[in-house]
Amino acid sequence: MVGFTKKEHQFLSELGLAPRNPGSFVNGIWKGSGPVVSSLNPANNQVIAEVVEASLEDYEEGMQACAGATRIWMQIPAPKRGEIVRQIGDALRGKLHELGRLVSLEMGKILPEGIGEVQEIIDMCDYAVGLSRQLNGSIIPSERPNHMMMEVWNPLGIVGVITAFNFPCAVLGWNACIALVCGNSVVWKGAPTTPLVTIAMTKIIASVLEKNNLPGAIFTAFCGGAEVGQALAADTRVPLVSFTGSTKVGLAVQQKVNERFGKSLLELSGNNAIIVMDDADIQLAVRSVLFAAVGTAGQRCTTCRRLLLHESIYQTVLDQLIEVYKQVRIGDPLEKGTLLGPLHTSASKENFVKGIQAIKSQGGKIVTGGSAVLESEGNFVQPTIVEISPSAPVVKEELFGPVLYVMKFQTLKEAIEINNSVPQGLSSSIFTRRPEIIFKWIGPVGSDCGIVNVNIFLQMVLK
Amino acid sequence: MVGFTKKEHQFLSELGLAPRNPGSFVNGIWKGSGPVVSSLNPANNQVIAEVVEASLEDYEEGMQACAGATRIWMQIPAPKRGEIVRQIGDALRGKLHELGRLVSLEMGKILPEGIGEVQEIIDMCDYAVGLSRQLNGSIIPSERPNHMMMEVWNPLGIVGVITAFNFPCAVLGWNACIALVCGNSVVWKGAPTTPLVTIAMTKIIASVLEKNNLPGAIFTAFCGGAEVGQALAADTRVPLVSFTGSTKVGLAVQQKVNERFGKSLLELSGNNAIIVMDDADIQLAVRSVLFAAVGTAGQRCTTCRRLLLHESIYQTVLDQLIEVYKQVRIGDPLEKGTLLGPLHTSASKENFVKGIQAIKSQGGKIVTGGSAVLESEGNFVQPTIVEISPSAPVVKEELFGPVLYVMKFQTLKEAIEINNSVPQGLSSSIFTRRPEIIFKWIGPVGSDCGIVNVNIFLQMVLK
Amino acid sequence: MVGFTKKEHQFLSELGLAPRNPGSFVNGIWKGSGPVVSSLNPANNQVIAEVVEASLEDYEEGMQACAGATRIWMQIPAPKRGEIVRQIGDALRGKLHELGRLVSLEMGKILPEGIGEVQEIIDMCDYAVGLSRQLNGSIIPSERPNHMMMEVWNPLGIVGVITAFNFPCAVLGWNACIALVCGNSVVWKGAPTTPLVTIAMTKIIASVLEKNNLPGAIFTAFCGGAEVGQALAADTRVPLVSFTGSTKVGLAVQQKVNERFGKSLLELSGNNAIIVMDDADIQLAVRSVLFAAVGTAGQRCTTCRRLLLHESIYQTVLDQLIEVYKQVRIGDPLEKGTLLGPLHTSASKENFVKGIQAIKSQGGKIVTGGSAVLESEGNFVQPTIVEISPSAPVVKEELFGPVLYVMKFQTLKEAIEINNSVPQGLSSSIFTRRPEIIFKWIGPVGSDCGIVNVNIFLQMVLK
Amino acid sequence: MVGFTKKEHQFLSELGLAPRNPGSFVNGIWKGSGPVVSSLNPANNQVIAEVVEASLEDYEEGMQACAGATRIWMQIPAPKRGEIVRQIGDALRGKLHELGRLVSLEMGKILPEGIGEVQEIIDMCDYAVGLSRQLNGSIIPSERPNHMMMEVWNPLGIVGVITAFNFPCAVLGWNACIALVCGNSVVWKGAPTTPLVTIAMTKIIASVLEKNNLPGAIFTAFCGGAEVGQALAADTRVPLVSFTGSTKVGLAVQQKVNERFGKSLLELSGNNAIIVMDDADIQLAVRSVLFAAVGTAGQRCTTCRRLLLHESIYQTVLDQLIEVYKQVRIGDPLEKGTLLGPLHTSASKENFVKGIQAIKSQGGKIVTGGSAVLESEGNFVQPTIVEISPSAPVVKEELFGPVLYVMKFQTLKEAIEINNSVPQGLSSSIFTRRPEIIFKWIGPVGSDCGIVNVNIFLQMVLK
Repeated sequence: MVGFTKKEHQFLSELGLAPRNPGSFVNGIWKGSGPVVSSLNPANNQVIAEVVEASLEDYEEGMQACAGATRIWMQIPAPKRGEIVRQIGDALRGKLHELGRLVSLEMGKILPEGIGEVQEIIDMCDYAVGLSRQLNGSIIPSERPNHMMMEVWNPLGIVGVITAFNFPCAVLGWNACIALVCGNSVVWKGAPTTPLVTIAMTKIIASVLEKNNLPGAIFTAFCGGAEVGQALAADTRVPLVSFTGSTKVGLAVQQKVNERFGKSLLELSGNNAIIVMDDADIQLAVRSVLFAAVGTAGQRCTTCRRLLLHESIYQTVLDQLIEVYKQVRIGDPLEKGTLLGPLHTSASKENFVKGIQAIKSQGGKIVTGGSAVLESEGNFVQPTIVEISPSAPVVKEELFGPVLYVMKFQTLKEAIEINNSVPQGLSSSIFTRRPEIIFKWIGPVGSDCGIVNVNIFLQMVLK
Repeated sequence: MVGFTKKEHQFLSELGLAPRNPGSFVNGIWKGSGPVVSSLNPANNQVIAEVVEASLEDYEEGMQACAGATRIWMQIPAPKRGEIVRQIGDALRGKLHELGRLVSLEMGKILPEGIGEVQEIIDMCDYAVGLSRQLNGSIIPSERPNHMMMEVWNPLGIVGVITAFNFPCAVLGWNACIALVCGNSVVWKGAPTTPLVTIAMTKIIASVLEKNNLPGAIFTAFCGGAEVGQALAADTRVPLVSFTGSTKVGLAVQQKVNERFGKSLLELSGNNAIIVMDDADIQLAVRSVLFAAVGTAGQRCTTCRRLLLHESIYQTVLDQLIEVYKQVRIGDPLEKGTLLGPLHTSASKENFVKGIQAIKSQGGKIVTGGSAVLESEGNFVQPTIVEISPSAPVVKEELFGPVLYVMKFQTLKEAIEINNSVPQGLSSSIFTRRPEIIFKWIGPVGSDCGIVNVNIFLQMVLK
Repeated sequence: MVGFTKKEHQFLSELGLAPRNPGSFVNGIWKGSGPVVSSLNPANNQVIAEVVEASLEDYEEGMQACAGATRIWMQIPAPKRGEIVRQIGDALRGKLHELGRLVSLEMGKILPEGIGEVQEIIDMCDYAVGLSRQLNGSIIPSERPNHMMMEVWNPLGIVGVITAFNFPCAVLGWNACIALVCGNSVVWKGAPTTPLVTIAMTKIIASVLEKNNLPGAIFTAFCGGAEVGQALAADTRVPLVSFTGSTKVGLAVQQKVNERFGKSLLELSGNNAIIVMDDADIQLAVRSVLFAAVGTAGQRCTTCRRLLLHESIYQTVLDQLIEVYKQVRIGDPLEKGTLLGPLHTSASKENFVKGIQAIKSQGGKIVTGGSAVLESEGNFVQPTIVEISPSAPVVKEELFGPVLYVMKFQTLKEAIEINNSVPQGLSSSIFTRRPEIIFKWIGPVGSDCGIVNVNIFLQMVLK
Repeated sequence: MVGFTKKEHQFLSELGLAPRNPGSFVNGIWKGSGPVVSSLNPANNQVIAEVVEASLEDYEEGMQACAGATRIWMQIPAPKRGEIVRQIGDALRGKLHELGRLVSLEMGKILPEGIGEVQEIIDMCDYAVGLSRQLNGSIIPSERPNHMMMEVWNPLGIVGVITAFNFPCAVLGWNACIALVCGNSVVWKGAPTTPLVTIAMTKIIASVLEKNNLPGAIFTAFCGGAEVGQALAADTRVPLVSFTGSTKVGLAVQQKVNERFGKSLLELSGNNAIIVMDDADIQLAVRSVLFAAVGTAGQRCTTCRRLLLHESIYQTVLDQLIEVYKQVRIGDPLEKGTLLGPLHTSASKENFVKGIQAIKSQGGKIVTGGSAVLESEGNFVQPTIVEISPSAPVVKEELFGPVLYVMKFQTLKEAIEINNSVPQGLSSSIFTRRPEIIFKWIGPVGSDCGIVNVNIFLQMVLK
């Protein structure tokens, strides 16, 4: 076996990676008969390693093995399944820094975020272990004598998980930890541009299954693109498909899965606003907005994209924001002190540039930033603030980069209306000190989002 | 106002019905500008009364009023909403016999089933009243100091409910009782062939809203067909659409609703089996099968369509069943002693005749019944038992009438495989005395249905 | 049967009461072989009617019948038991005004409070009906193969309920509604000074049992004093005894019940504080304090007895309170406009007078009120405000009347310490607008009470 | 430091034990100023090591430090507390065999039971870690507009845990794991005769606290006897006292704790029956009875003490039992193959001898066993089967040793009555194949025990 030539890639060996890697984990064996792809470092667009993707034959072989393994796995008592997940958590603890570093290297997010992403899976394992003794059914009183009703939770069977580049392993963790303790096998298709994370993560899980003499097919993984994703969506052996990614692809997956009366679980776009009221703690708000808008280079579904400022503090907040934006250190995500790494791909960078043009053409005023970093070979762009009208069409879209739209409002009612005026509504936040505003904000006529924050933004909760 | 000429229809006046009725309850007012349709008595195909269906203009007017009323309703405290639902339950108690009689007259099910259907809504009201003080959110410990997480349940807004002819009001009750206490308005489209039940039921609910000075638009109802149903499915003002009916239409509704990322709640076909093991209480099993297969003339989604008999008791059970089938009294559903009323429409009757032909052509052997009742003007057919192979294509379909397919098996494993071999899987039942069989049956490798009975069938639980 | 001579007592006939009444409901029959007592009107100390209390023979006969009835009741399906409780709720609705009037007449609280108390039982019935279909057990995953664990809720058997004068029927309602749907029989000993409420309430419940052909012994009631209470506490046939009353008696009941490893449920004293911070809505606070301290003549366990005012608003709040106290209308509780009725007994009045003396001797300064109303034959006293040190011994006791101790503090920490410095800690409240204070107040180092309010006091929630 | 002279005690050094050990863990420091006691090996009554017990001065010092540490601990976020408990679980994993061996050596149970007991704490840790993110409060809908109700779980403060010799560490684990994640400090008094387990267990927990820079006083432990136990029961700084042990002492603890309105959690005696019906799987039943009656030398609270056999299989089961009892290997609990170790103390052995005399004097017939093993220096006795009448007084008591009373019955009703005829009722079991018997057994007129088994007995679940 030939090792990595670049010194900074040598830690990959400890994750079981090589310069060229088969990308299908099928029936407990690594193989791959699809196209060969290169994984690129977003900070310089150089090759890290190569991966042989899954072909449809690999897919079919994997699914058949998985279906068989599922019958075994679902009959193991839940607390015993929990013990396996506990061991997965411990195996991840042992590789926390290596896997976190790989996430940072291949995805482009800064190192603390890379490590934080892996830590989140570890936390999920701990949580799922506890759940493995609490998957309680119910015994419900019947209105008939000598009759009882029970609600019993049986495993679904196989759970398909399709994940996106921006959280190349945490999202798998959320889905897989719960699916596994519940008695389901997992079939994972990672993002096409982060195959090394997919392989490294799978190897850690596979090692635990092997140590416990369990079929490797309980966890089946494929590196690949749309072809494998479509096969999963259409596969009647997969009663539940979890998809994370764009709204457009997510809609297609959903319709395909539902057509066969499968269940789908979608994590799609977000177009998230922060409202700053006149009585807010300005310092706290500014710091929160910075991390919410610039963290992960604006490539989180919970990234703050819209900032709604009460007119009375509009200029103050904006001025302070411009100040802190100027101090944001752009650079190699693995270097200490970097706050803003590259966008994930060169296509993302082009998309950013096009987005800025659209913003300008729709009346948006660039307050700071607004350009790609031309001198670099990587996919770097500037953190950007834009003053714009809430009704500009670009504001309703999700430009996946560090671009923040700033708007002014006069009343809480108006702010809530702007917050609720986009189709994506995922996360939202208000900064205020008044209880009556807080309770209105979280109530039936408040934010229409699923995540409704007060005096905080989800900077550390991933995706 | 002109009353009903036939004596047996005069009780309809007490439900607020007239020989001709506007079929849209829009913003608290009855109107209708769509086509005029006749409601027919399935026992003789004569007109009961006429209804003016909703036009798309009526629909739009109703939805706008409903959207406005929703903002009021969702801000009323949940226990106060519960009090309204309690009053609806009491109003239904006051009309139990009249409304039950109308269900029987218009739908064709026997009177005890008609009254039972209304009683079920009353029970739902009681249950929902209790829930109105228990719509609890959660306070979840955060890993961050000075931070707390809350899960709060806000109303969705408007809940659309599309119901089928076979349970013309109970299904509305299930959906509406819960939707209302949760703070949602309800928009109901009843089945095209049971408009009188739709109107009578709506009048009862409307009277309670009026007495409490609440906007009538909180409960909006339309008599009509596919046009209104499609409008509901596509309407972005309706975040949740509940649909009960055929798999074909249900699939179309689901895809339309999901396309706009709405939520759908579907109650579709069933192809339900009863397994009788060698150690079963035969008498109990035979009685259960009779009611499960013949009740509501086989037009329940939970009707037993397949009977799987262990070879050792096959002939005994079959002989006893034929005996009890011969004693089934067919006739006017309102008459005391009738066990089997007519099918709902003359099209259903034709469908039954075609189904029998298909059965025969696929090797099915008619053991008893098998014909329509020709001498009647109503839609009567004979209760029918068929011996047939589990692999015959008709067995995998849902023939909506009193036709029971009988099959033989040797082992539990085989019986479970046959049970799980149809695509519809809704309800299922086993008759046995052995605990180890019971627990296998309800476990991960047992029945794949949502309803898994033991020594009982869902004869009285509707739909 | 001889009726009531006084016109204002004639409504009692509608509750089934007579000038002389047997006070034991034993095996479905009214009897009484104990001492004869008079029920007095606290507003004038005149006799309303007489009651023959239960003897220990009556008690024993009642318990034997109850034990037998319990075996029947506990085997009735829970939803059917819920239907009985629903009918009890409806029977109470039919007597709401009569029973509320009797509560007011016999206990002395003002009429809206009397009616409110009955309404609360009606609400409890509605709630319990809902619960009757939700007494869910659990099915818990086992770590062993082919093993399942279930948590099933069986009835306890007989639940004993001992209630106090201040809420002569609501407390019974809280306990009995839940006990009954859970499949337990109820044995009630009402307060010795409110026997007419005990009888009237029991008659309403008994009528429902009778109408449903259920044994009357499912609900067994005794008018009587300590002797019957002690018998209940010691009775091994009663696995759970609920007691509401003084701490002293409650402690004795608890020790007696626990000695036989029975369960006890105690609602004892309260010494409840309201904290008003410097940023509070003063008007809201003053209004809340008034009702919290003067309502039910200070004879609620949740009565506000201590008012902690931030030094910066101390004098303002105190001045406004004195102003509103002067406008409190004292008088016949049945008369419209009365805010403060009499204390319950002449002994309570004497106790009030002694309490004032103790206050003065410990340095308390009477700011308003402080005397009994001498000119009346009833048990009237003045609403009283006292400035006093938090360390005075009387402040740590529960003087059961309309006496409010006012104290000054400088910091939140100090206010919480004073709040937590009494042994009784039941309810507490803070008035402030700052979220950080609210969350500290309800957190681990905040109020040590079970009820922790913010910007409200429990004026309408009884007991 | 002087080590252990006997070779078989040298593993104790790895648990941090020495020939003489201070027995109080106070404010993070080991000390002891009470009497010196010797820990004896029940298999030979020789000294293992000495312990200096806690004095009341040690107690007071420990409680003051604990009270201070509690304020810190309760403000740490619950998931962070869960992380500490996870580390405790991992520390126990690292010492599983050493600690299990010590349990076996000092308590006298066989090694697999000793290790099983420690494993149970590890499982509890895993479970508690999961709970640390699920200590959810509730948000309850209010009937008032603009009002919400929350149920929030705050820590109690200090939880006192008094444990018994038979499970010298598992019971601590059950209590402490939950108490700690909930934010409470723990004060532990172990059994007087198992001080080495108390010290070794505490050292493991203390090491985790120290590694995380947390105050050691969060976990405070005392070796000692009644004096410390009484101090804990009376201590108002301890809102909850958990006690495991005899009914007599438990009652005294309860009354003392409740006197100050503290909460007590009691695990006391058990007098557990197994019912074998005529249709039972005899082989399964015999094997279960053997382990249930002889395991832990009959010193579990869940030990089977009464065997109720249907008359039709009475002699068959009894004969088979006698056969297997003869094969029980008695001996050193640390030796492989031993099934029955010694009783815990020489007093237990004397008590066994006295018990056999009482049995004989009350008409009991010794079928097998019945003697102490005289030739040994340890506390060994024979596994014993007795035929006796259910009404003999000894049958209602709990003789803490391997003595099984066998009785005959004719009907299920009779068997349930015998099962329910003792005052202790903790666990119970039936062996049958009929579902209708199973559901009667677990229903309202079935077993009156908290643990109601079917076709199994709690052989591996400790205590």
